[in-house]
Amino acid sequence: MTSNSFKLACIQLAVGSNKRTNLDRAKGKILEAAREGANVVVLPECFNSPYGTQYFAEYAESIPEGESVSVLSQAAKEAKVLLVPFRNETKNPANCTTHALCIILKARELIATHRKIHLFDIDIPGKIRFQESDILKPGNSLTIFDTAYGKMSIGICYDMRFPELAMIAARKACVMMIYPGAFNMITGPLHWELLQRARAVDNQLFVATCSPARDMNATYNAWGHSTVVDPSGQIIATTEHEEATVYAEIDLQQLQTVRQSIPVSMQRRFDIYVDVAANAK
Amino acid sequence: MTSNSFKLACIQLAVGSNKRTNLDRAKGKILEAAREGANVVVLPECFNSPYGTQYFAEYAESIPEGESVSVLSQAAKEAKVLLVPFRNETKNPANCTTHALCIILKARELIATHRKIHLFDIDIPGKIRFQESDILKPGNSLTIFDTAYGKMSIGICYDMRFPELAMIAARKACVMMIYPGAFNMITGPLHWELLQRARAVDNQLFVATCSPARDMNATYNAWGHSTVVDPSGQIIATTEHEEATVYAEIDLQQLQTVRQSIPVSMQRRFDIYVDVAANAK
Repeated sequence: MTSNSFKLACIQLAVGSNKRTNLDRAKGKILEAAREGANVVVLPECFNSPYGTQYFAEYAESIPEGESVSVLSQAAKEAKVLLVPFRNETKNPANCTTHALCIILKARELIATHRKIHLFDIDIPGKIRFQESDILKPGNSLTIFDTAYGKMSIGICYDMRFPELAMIAARKACVMMIYPGAFNMITGPLHWELLQRARAVDNQLFVATCSPARDMNATYNAWGHSTVVDPSGQIIATTEHEEATVYAEIDLQQLQTVRQSIPVSMQRRFDIYVDVAANAK
Repeated sequence: MTSNSFKLACIQLAVGSNKRTNLDRAKGKILEAAREGANVVVLPECFNSPYGTQYFAEYAESIPEGESVSVLSQAAKEAKVLLVPFRNETKNPANCTTHALCIILKARELIATHRKIHLFDIDIPGKIRFQESDILKPGNSLTIFDTAYGKMSIGICYDMRFPELAMIAARKACVMMIYPGAFNMITGPLHWELLQRARAVDNQLFVATCSPARDMNATYNAWGHSTVVDPSGQIIATTEHEEATVYAEIDLQQLQTVRQSIPVSMQRRFDIYVDVAANAK
C-alpha cells in the first residue's frame, strides 16, 4: 500500500573540490533533512565533485563499490529516509567508460540506477560551450522505480530538455519526475524553471529539481534555484542560489484532482499521433 | 524561395454577439495591420461569435460558402496579407456536424483548414466546466501548410495542452506554431503563457497565440494576453486583456541560431523512445 503524502527534501549542497568533505557535508544535510521529517531526499548532480569534464575521471567511482555509495548508503540508513537519489560518475573497470549516474538508495539497498541519457553538448557562441560526450558515455534506458509513495522516474540535468522522459513516466503511472541538475548562468535564467514547469503541466505529475549551490570561485557556476513543482505546473517550493534545503509536502491526492479537472490523459489522440510511451524501453 | 523575416500581427479582437459587426470590425483591424506592415495576420478563436457551446450552432457556417469566409477572403485580398488564419464553427449540411475550425487564406484562396482535434471538456469543481463535445465533433488530422516564410502549423486553444502537435510540427520543419485560443480567467493565469513557452522551448520554433479581448459582460470571459514567443521560449510580444493588435518581427534566422546553440533536435534518443512525428497523419 502506498502513502498519500510525503515530505521531500532537495539539498542544494555547497560543493567543493574535496570529495571527502563533500560526502561528509552531504551526510550531515541528509541527517538534518531527516530530523525535519523528510521521507525522500534528493542530492544535486555533481554533489561530490565540481562540475566540469576535466573533473569527471578523477572523481569517478565504481558503483556500488565506491566511497560515495558507502557513505551515502550509511546516511540513508541512519536517516531512515526511504531513498536518496544522487549523481556520480562511475568508471566501469571492465571497459573504462564513465557515465553520469544517479543511484537510488533505500536504507543500504541500491534499488535503481539512472545513467544520463542525453549528454550536455551545447555551444552558444561567445557565451558557453560544453561537450560532455568528450568524456562520458550516455545511458541507454529509462529509469522508473517503485517507492512507498508510488512510482518515480529520474532524468539528469540535460535530460530535462527532452520531453519524452516525463511523458513516458507519467503515462507509466509515475507520481514524480526528479531531475538532479546543474544548469548554468546562461541556461539557468533562460530555461531551468520553464522546463520543469512544462514537464509538470504537460504530464500532470510532480517535478523536483536539485542543483548544487553556486560557487563563483568554481570553473562552472551553477544556477541553483532547486525547485518543486506541482502537477498543475505551479511552483510549491524553491530557493535562490545559496546552499539551502528545499522542503515540500507532497500531497499525492493532488494528482487525481488535477488529472480529473483537466483530463488530458484521457483525451490524447493516439489515433492521430503515436504514444511515446508505447514500447518505451 | 522563402523570406528570412516577416511581420506577424495577432488581432486580439473585441467580439460581440452581432456577427456582421464582428466581421466588419475584424476586416478593419486586418486592413490596419496591413498598413502597419503585417505580412501574416492571426484572428482569435471565436472571432465572429461569443464563446460558448450555446452559440456554436447559431453562428456556424458552411465552409467555404459562408459569410465569414467571404468577408475575410476579401479582406485578405485587399490587405495583401499572405494568410489569415481564423476560427469558425462550420456546419456540414450533409450530416449536421459542427467543428471548431481554422481556415488559412492567401488572398482569396483557402489554402488550408484545421479542425480542432482536442475538444475542450474540463471540469474544475466549483470553478469552471465546459463540454464542447456536447456540440462539436473533433477533427482527425494535423494541419501543416506552406507559406512564403516556411511551413507553419495550427492548433486551436485546448489543442495547445497536447505537446505532440508542436513536436510533430517542428520535426516536420515548421517555423511557427499558431494557436488561436480563448483561455479563461481560471486556466489563463495558470497555463496560457506557460504552455506556449513550453511548446517553443521544447521544439525551438516560434509560437503565436491569439485570444479575443476580454468582455466581462459576456458569459465567457477570455483571458486575452495574445502573445508571440521566440524559439528559445522568450516572449517577444504580448498584451493585456483589452482589444489590441500584437505585432512581432519574426527573424527566421533565429531558428538556426537557437537550434545550433542547444542542438536537441540532433540529440534525441529515438533508440530509447519512439519519435512522435513518425507516421503522424
